[in-house]
Amino acid sequence: MQTSGIVTLTTDFGLADSYVGIMKGVILGIARQATMIDITHQISPQNIHQAAYIVQTFEDYFPQGTVHVVVVDPGVGGNRRRIVLATPVALYVAPDNGVLTYVWRDATARWGMERCAVYELTEPRYWLPHVSSTFHGRDVFAPVAAHLALGVPPARMGERREQIVEAPLEQPSRGRNGELVGRIIHLDNFGNCITNITPEHLHAAGFGDRVVVQLIGQRIDGLCRIYADVALGALVALIGSSDRLEIAVRNGSAAQTLGAGIGDTVRVFPAPHDRS
Amino acid sequence: MQTSGIVTLTTDFGLADSYVGIMKGVILGIARQATMIDITHQISPQNIHQAAYIVQTFEDYFPQGTVHVVVVDPGVGGNRRRIVLATPVALYVAPDNGVLTYVWRDATARWGMERCAVYELTEPRYWLPHVSSTFHGRDVFAPVAAHLALGVPPARMGERREQIVEAPLEQPSRGRNGELVGRIIHLDNFGNCITNITPEHLHAAGFGDRVVVQLIGQRIDGLCRIYADVALGALVALIGSSDRLEIAVRNGSAAQTLGAGIGDTVRVFPAPHDRS
Amino acid sequence: MQTSGIVTLTTDFGLADSYVGIMKGVILGIARQATMIDITHQISPQNIHQAAYIVQTFEDYFPQGTVHVVVVDPGVGGNRRRIVLATPVALYVAPDNGVLTYVWRDATARWGMERCAVYELTEPRYWLPHVSSTFHGRDVFAPVAAHLALGVPPARMGERREQIVEAPLEQPSRGRNGELVGRIIHLDNFGNCITNITPEHLHAAGFGDRVVVQLIGQRIDGLCRIYADVALGALVALIGSSDRLEIAVRNGSAAQTLGAGIGDTVRVFPAPHDRS
Repeated sequence: MQTSGIVTLTTDFGLADSYVGIMKGVILGIARQATMIDITHQISPQNIHQAAYIVQTFEDYFPQGTVHVVVVDPGVGGNRRRIVLATPVALYVAPDNGVLTYVWRDATARWGMERCAVYELTEPRYWLPHVSSTFHGRDVFAPVAAHLALGVPPARMGERREQIVEAPLEQPSRGRNGELVGRIIHLDNFGNCITNITPEHLHAAGFGDRVVVQLIGQRIDGLCRIYADVALGALVALIGSSDRLEIAVRNGSAAQTLGAGIGDTVRVFPAPHDRS
Repeated sequence: MQTSGIVTLTTDFGLADSYVGIMKGVILGIARQATMIDITHQISPQNIHQAAYIVQTFEDYFPQGTVHVVVVDPGVGGNRRRIVLATPVALYVAPDNGVLTYVWRDATARWGMERCAVYELTEPRYWLPHVSSTFHGRDVFAPVAAHLALGVPPARMGERREQIVEAPLEQPSRGRNGELVGRIIHLDNFGNCITNITPEHLHAAGFGDRVVVQLIGQRIDGLCRIYADVALGALVALIGSSDRLEIAVRNGSAAQTLGAGIGDTVRVFPAPHDRS
Repeated sequence: MQTSGIVTLTTDFGLADSYVGIMKGVILGIARQATMIDITHQISPQNIHQAAYIVQTFEDYFPQGTVHVVVVDPGVGGNRRRIVLATPVALYVAPDNGVLTYVWRDATARWGMERCAVYELTEPRYWLPHVSSTFHGRDVFAPVAAHLALGVPPARMGERREQIVEAPLEQPSRGRNGELVGRIIHLDNFGNCITNITPEHLHAAGFGDRVVVQLIGQRIDGLCRIYADVALGALVALIGSSDRLEIAVRNGSAAQTLGAGIGDTVRVFPAPHDRS
């Protein structure tokens, strides 16, 4: 796989400090022609589950050979590994703490484990000369990403490992009445509530579009195609742009209207048989 | 008009999601050499008036042939048109819902309607192969912008239309005592209150610099040239950097001091005759 | 010193306005190939001390010959000078109001005053043709930075000055019990409390690692190397990634836990003699 020369950045560093700018300076010092794209720096501090979700949403939209850096790293300086994951289409540089769980599952399901190589970052020649104990984004992840963007093969970065550490990210389960039981895993800028339920889960459960969605005492009948299918201010359930069940309010905030938060339970029932 | 290869982005997507990063990935997949500049992604969700104001502020400061993408799109997936507006100096890609109202008025006033061409985006060959119903920023606007940045003529994007949809953005009016009556249309990061009153309005009303500005029970005498013309913490009225009447507090926040918000009324009276 | 073609931006403009985007448009109009890197635009409005701290943190991580623009400018339009500071490794463009205090002290200590040249921006040929009274970031600082990024020597920008205006940024002092008395100067995105105490201060005071840190009625024994050295939720003191004494909570927010804010006093005592 040839490098695209693009490096994306996903962190929990926020935008009020110089941390992100410093990582970019380090990358430019090694790969002056790299194109750097911010995904987000507003992952909730040290929230590995949210990071794992966000990292899954964008891979398909970047040119092949892009390097994706993910720094959500509550164990910085401790003994968690630092890795690069090389799939047939992209490279991920991250602490091995679960932030790559979803992309690992997707990639191994799509291409098989043998085509998804994991290397532990053990080769200091690709790091900054001095590695601090609190900012590996600057001292290890950024320089490694820059070398990968230049085309250095990931196998040079360190020793091969069998697999990554998967975080125990909850999958939807079946409730006692046959319903799918999932959770809200992300609230977006519009207050849309994004769940861990995908169309595949609905299909595997034998549900069609005529489902009933329940959360926080509210009931929504059926899946819509677009927000504008319902009245202004009304609740709507649909499969959102990242291919997950999403609960929204048209021209409003479902999170605010419902008082919903990350972790809240969402139940999906098959529609009752109608009499027509 | 030759393309500058620059694409600016103005949205209400916020920075906590991957939406903006995904749009940039799509653009780079088509136009690898494009230079992408964020204007802001913090338009109040679905606030078309605020978007229209912001979009008017920056055109003059970018090289000719820049592509400006504006995605504030409460009707996504519905039957609002998607358009490109081509003026003699810039290209705008946006939903046809009023976000281009101010730039359309400016451009047609400056160059005449015949030199401001509107095309509806009807040619799917310039979109992503699959168009979702909820994220046209990714599926339509980003790829169209990328093709324009590569130099594809806007006329190829679809059918010519006569004009855009103008939002009913309020203009200042005359009050019963001869005063100009305007409104606050934007609060900036410093708490400066930016109004819909321009120097042209003041001139047309026959007012000079010696006006009296009233808002929220406060009275400000005269227009200053700079913030530092008044004491620390004092209110000041001036023509701000985007060429509109602005109310500020020196080294403070006028919005906070006054409890002012978007939509609040601002009155400008000619100065009373002095006896000198 | 050859230009790197990189321009960094540090301002208090926030991200909800078009101010930052406009500065970038101006830079691209002059230096189309410049690489622009945002450090932060969330300096507290007009907080010169915080800006001075942030500006000190990133210089070492950018390629030599980078142009750093700093616009925190409460006196815009008044009679404060506008300057470029040229050190042997970088160029700084800023209002002469103290925002460069720390980098000036560092640079003159490292290379001597004669190798740190200050020029007042007095040459209008490097500005926009029209200079407003409220937005010199756009009209003066951005175009000057662009010309410097193109390789125009800083001496062309205006008249040589002897030195910059140093802000009276407080240094740690000695308390009546021999302790070092410093202050919190920045809270980062994780709630880490960063102080004005450096390892050099601790060394000069004759303290080792076995110190006791006191703030807001809390006492922390010893400096750790990494956050993970203490239990989840516990307070920890360490030398952070920007080489200053920092108080943190492992996987939490020290600022929130302690109710700490910028300006709060931090005391460091030598450890009491142990009996071993």
